[in-house]
Amino acid sequence: MRTRAAVAVQAGKPLEIMDVNLDGPRAGEVLVEIKATGICHTDEFTLSGADPEGMFPAILGHEGAGVVVEVGEGVTSLKPGDHVIPLYTPECRECEYCLHPKTNLCQSIRETQGKGVMPDGTSRFSTLDGDPILHYMGCSTFSNHTVLPEIALAKIREDAPFDKVCYIGCGVTTGIGAVINTAKVEIGSRAVVFGLGGIGLNVIQGLRLAGADQIVGVDINPDKVPMAERFGMTHFVNPKEVEGDLVPYLVNLTKGGADYTFDATGNVQVMRDALECAHKGWGESIIIGVAPAGAKISTRPFQLVTGRTWKGTAFGGARGRTDVPKIVDWYMDGKIEIDPMITHTMSLDDINKGFDLMHAGESIRSVVIY
Amino acid sequence: MRTRAAVAVQAGKPLEIMDVNLDGPRAGEVLVEIKATGICHTDEFTLSGADPEGMFPAILGHEGAGVVVEVGEGVTSLKPGDHVIPLYTPECRECEYCLHPKTNLCQSIRETQGKGVMPDGTSRFSTLDGDPILHYMGCSTFSNHTVLPEIALAKIREDAPFDKVCYIGCGVTTGIGAVINTAKVEIGSRAVVFGLGGIGLNVIQGLRLAGADQIVGVDINPDKVPMAERFGMTHFVNPKEVEGDLVPYLVNLTKGGADYTFDATGNVQVMRDALECAHKGWGESIIIGVAPAGAKISTRPFQLVTGRTWKGTAFGGARGRTDVPKIVDWYMDGKIEIDPMITHTMSLDDINKGFDLMHAGESIRSVVIY
Repeated sequence: MRTRAAVAVQAGKPLEIMDVNLDGPRAGEVLVEIKATGICHTDEFTLSGADPEGMFPAILGHEGAGVVVEVGEGVTSLKPGDHVIPLYTPECRECEYCLHPKTNLCQSIRETQGKGVMPDGTSRFSTLDGDPILHYMGCSTFSNHTVLPEIALAKIREDAPFDKVCYIGCGVTTGIGAVINTAKVEIGSRAVVFGLGGIGLNVIQGLRLAGADQIVGVDINPDKVPMAERFGMTHFVNPKEVEGDLVPYLVNLTKGGADYTFDATGNVQVMRDALECAHKGWGESIIIGVAPAGAKISTRPFQLVTGRTWKGTAFGGARGRTDVPKIVDWYMDGKIEIDPMITHTMSLDDINKGFDLMHAGESIRSVVIY
Repeated sequence: MRTRAAVAVQAGKPLEIMDVNLDGPRAGEVLVEIKATGICHTDEFTLSGADPEGMFPAILGHEGAGVVVEVGEGVTSLKPGDHVIPLYTPECRECEYCLHPKTNLCQSIRETQGKGVMPDGTSRFSTLDGDPILHYMGCSTFSNHTVLPEIALAKIREDAPFDKVCYIGCGVTTGIGAVINTAKVEIGSRAVVFGLGGIGLNVIQGLRLAGADQIVGVDINPDKVPMAERFGMTHFVNPKEVEGDLVPYLVNLTKGGADYTFDATGNVQVMRDALECAHKGWGESIIIGVAPAGAKISTRPFQLVTGRTWKGTAFGGARGRTDVPKIVDWYMDGKIEIDPMITHTMSLDDINKGFDLMHAGESIRSVVIY
């Protein structure tokens, strides 16, 4: 079939909107009509050329929602008409990782996914001239239609709006999951969140959901305060306005250090501060942000020997097919908010404007509606 | 009263054996006759002058066992004749730390302990001329008699031999506790232990006790193999004999990475290797060793984002008054071994020989028997 897509032709260039060929689903695969997709910093990271594993030409996008059109041979858990969210972290429920209680990093299709192809080693996308175009993160939601493995699709309720719950495909789950799945924050905890962008806001609402007593937001941009407060931030700290060192200031503000701290900046110096303002004895610091290639975190080992724990999280520790439908329910039940974070919507033809808004710091999330 | 002690007169000098004055126990304090004491690397670290918090003159030693001679006003949990192990990490059971489920780092007397004095701010030790001598880690077991706060003494069974269970006052508990309390190793785990000294051996027997399936020991000295195998090591790796990089070698040996890794070297490069050979998705690395002042650990944050956890442990995460008597029971019941690790014994007059043996790498543990 033919479909319309935004193609990343080469690093550092705007996406090109064009018709492309899409082969039908093979065994274990599913053809999905994407109804909406968010534009995430990870798409930008790859498009910019900064991602050492980026490959071109490819169809980016990994934060979508849509409807099943056709299923390939052997697909049993989905049927045409089902509403789905694509998962860049699949859940096969059979590999060593899926069967381990401590991780969500299903490895069953990781190798081919990293190469921009389906599990059988080929791409379903091609130009109208027949040249192959690569998939991206196993999703390629910047195409109106895409093909995914069955294990990379979460089936969701049919009354959930695509243009909102698409954000659960990455940002919402990453932020809330870091709190619920990775940190396992307890009621009454004190927490510090570094970075009040899309991920940071979702960490904050995750903390509110978990019953945290103190939710400190740290950002150098005070314009982010109203939205962060709306999502549950109780204290704001602008490092530029702190006299002296930030870490002791935050330790004092949290009465000895935070029970949990979260880095949502990707800055390795911030990651260190996040660790060191965690409470002696029991504080845990969770790295969410993606650092530049080659960057390193560092600290004195004494910080760990005196009881701090340093962790990271990917896709919020969520097992997508199991957890994403629950998060959709939380949204539909009003336990979490998404609408205010979707600051801009646009058509596929205008997708490059979404990247411009991101660069300008004007959007929290832009969503393309097909 | 007068007692006999080995006094650290100044950094870098041998201990001087002399009679000293010891004041009796004040309120909440206990006078203990030390029957035996181990000589630990931490004593050597302070005596050498490398410890930035070291103060002199002081009576070192923190790994002892003895008998209560006299109790001060208000002491209710101990009476003369009780057998005890001094605790450099006390357990008051009342402070914010003792009441927190995730830490053993009781802070109730930390400030005065760090200054070499009792909780009332004064020292019980002095020279025969009346000049004060400082306590050390709240213990000062290099004195035949010493005074400690009640909360810094674990009461143990009376049939346990002092010259063996003194080692539970630091090394045994630190190593076994890192496995049991901090890592909480599960049956069937794969583990890597870096450093096969006294702490590493105790990590190994902790792993055996916890039911680990694979216990890899890493050391540059192959002479340590027979003893490590006796305590449960299943595989030995000498980094000098590995072709190529050590981390991928260990990842391969442990079939994808170890569930738990332990640094018992204090070397920050080894700490990084220990983290990076932990299994993607769920591997945890525990820092036990004390690094040189100012040394930093570092890694790429990707190591954590892909599911590894970096932790540390002090006194094996043990709550001394609660856990040390249990470990004494494990020893008496034959669940753990101590005797083969105590390679040398000596009188207090010969204590400097114990340090010489440590420097020469000839001892696992030297114990002074009074």
